[in-house]
Amino acid sequence: MDFGIDSIRTAAKRLEGRVVRTPLLQSPQLDELAGARVLVKAECLQLTGAFKLRGALNKVLSLAPDEVARGVATYSAGNHGQAVAAAARLNGCPAVVVLPRTAPAIKVENCRWWGAETVLYDPRTQDRAEVLDRILQERGMTLVHPFDDHAVMAGQGTVGLEIMEDLHRDGRTADAVVVSCSGGGLASGVVEAVRATSPRTECCFVEPRGFDKMARSLRSGTPQAHRSVPHTVMDAIAGPVVGARPLAVLHRHHATGLTVDDDQALAAVAAAFRTLKVVLEPGGAAALAAVLSRQADFAGKTVVVIASGGNVDPAVYTRALADT
Amino acid sequence: MDFGIDSIRTAAKRLEGRVVRTPLLQSPQLDELAGARVLVKAECLQLTGAFKLRGALNKVLSLAPDEVARGVATYSAGNHGQAVAAAARLNGCPAVVVLPRTAPAIKVENCRWWGAETVLYDPRTQDRAEVLDRILQERGMTLVHPFDDHAVMAGQGTVGLEIMEDLHRDGRTADAVVVSCSGGGLASGVVEAVRATSPRTECCFVEPRGFDKMARSLRSGTPQAHRSVPHTVMDAIAGPVVGARPLAVLHRHHATGLTVDDDQALAAVAAAFRTLKVVLEPGGAAALAAVLSRQADFAGKTVVVIASGGNVDPAVYTRALADT
Repeated sequence: MDFGIDSIRTAAKRLEGRVVRTPLLQSPQLDELAGARVLVKAECLQLTGAFKLRGALNKVLSLAPDEVARGVATYSAGNHGQAVAAAARLNGCPAVVVLPRTAPAIKVENCRWWGAETVLYDPRTQDRAEVLDRILQERGMTLVHPFDDHAVMAGQGTVGLEIMEDLHRDGRTADAVVVSCSGGGLASGVVEAVRATSPRTECCFVEPRGFDKMARSLRSGTPQAHRSVPHTVMDAIAGPVVGARPLAVLHRHHATGLTVDDDQALAAVAAAFRTLKVVLEPGGAAALAAVLSRQADFAGKTVVVIASGGNVDPAVYTRALADT
Repeated sequence: MDFGIDSIRTAAKRLEGRVVRTPLLQSPQLDELAGARVLVKAECLQLTGAFKLRGALNKVLSLAPDEVARGVATYSAGNHGQAVAAAARLNGCPAVVVLPRTAPAIKVENCRWWGAETVLYDPRTQDRAEVLDRILQERGMTLVHPFDDHAVMAGQGTVGLEIMEDLHRDGRTADAVVVSCSGGGLASGVVEAVRATSPRTECCFVEPRGFDKMARSLRSGTPQAHRSVPHTVMDAIAGPVVGARPLAVLHRHHATGLTVDDDQALAAVAAAFRTLKVVLEPGGAAALAAVLSRQADFAGKTVVVIASGGNVDPAVYTRALADT
């Protein structure tokens, strides 16, 4: 499958009525905090609590009947795992999710709730790729990669397409679109959709400070891994590697890399609580954190921020509310 | 101004593009918890964080130019105060909000943020009606009553109109609509809109257990006040009295009264955090709490629940997450 705006439009048609068309939220108080006009694409309101369902469902809907019968498998820090579990359930096929023992409890529980089999591995002693490969070979399942797959990227790109459709319908546009980034599936899909429909809109991707593997990959020209095990509250965007396919898209569109630290992410979680009344996880608030903490870059502009997920343990959420 | 479905439709036209058309959220996990198909009208995503803007704005938009120039005033436990402040700001008129010293800090701050003058009174020693009357007379301001006003009720009724429009567009209907109730502005507007467009849909209103002044008013036929100062975490629906106009509407439509206790309200706040990723205040979660705690009443039905607001102090929210 090729990747571009046409495949994103095809994904949008395929997903219509099956995923939530999430709203663009706004708040005058949030605009004041940011010193900019901020529109928040609330993917936390997506089924499964994160954008990930779009890519997983687009992938599963593109499988042949015999592939559906054998089922799908993936590894995931959690949000993608839930999405694959839900996409499989919605299409009546088996699913296995491989995930680290360290994943937030809510994410493991939710994979199981959707009917997926979960296989937990120890990230200190086991390689997740090996664990997954064994399952794929033994059971003949199809891999739904979290990001390095054109069908998955096209599904995630529907987030960007919806944003630009909503803006253009009202005769508006955006000076910038800011999106969180780990492996790059969401970022590449969104950047492709935004640039194809609004070439002058700046596209920024956001990583945890100190763990900016995509920015380093763009500089070096090849996919980079983390140099150390990431310690960050933004677990949703702290996966170990970037994808070659997302990297190529972000390179082609000259996307700008930004970083935020844990305190900034938690402050953004609290700001969303106070002003928007949506629940964000720290990784899902990274893009908002970048805009709130870099006022000089966005002053007076119209900025669309993607709030990518809301699957957060109560203890982490309580910490975010207490810190601010 | 008369009150009925026509005045609600007129309000809807007036408010179009000025208030958020809030989404109907759903979650398979929430459906499982409830044992019913639950659709949640997320008025916490409304500008000012609660449905109250609809009624206040409809009232302010119906004023004559000289009335706008003199401004508006109200008393409020908070959400209505913010709404009047915002409605006044949006229409360029002065506003005074009278509210108890015991109101959550976030609500007082938000009234001021919108540019309203706030007058705090001591609910143990002062009568809020007297405090407000003095302001109305001295400044020639117009009262925007929180509930006992046909223009306000019509504005709140647009919540019900949107629900039924969204359902009917998809060829669906609701077995029941459940709405929180204090003075009765929202409940009466919603019940009128729902019954006029879907006569067979059951309408339930929800009050804090022990403080069910509307249910007592329906039984006695006249507006009743609380018998004691309410001690409840559901401050948004613990106002002292019901309105005669809302009472007449709920009586005419034979609305059913339900109650929930604090623990049930807090559990519903936590359920919305986990499954819907929206922030609700306890009073705003009362309708959801009623459905979650009365499974026998709603088993297998399609139930629309109005989540009326999300303006909650972090300490209360943290308590809700810790309890469950």
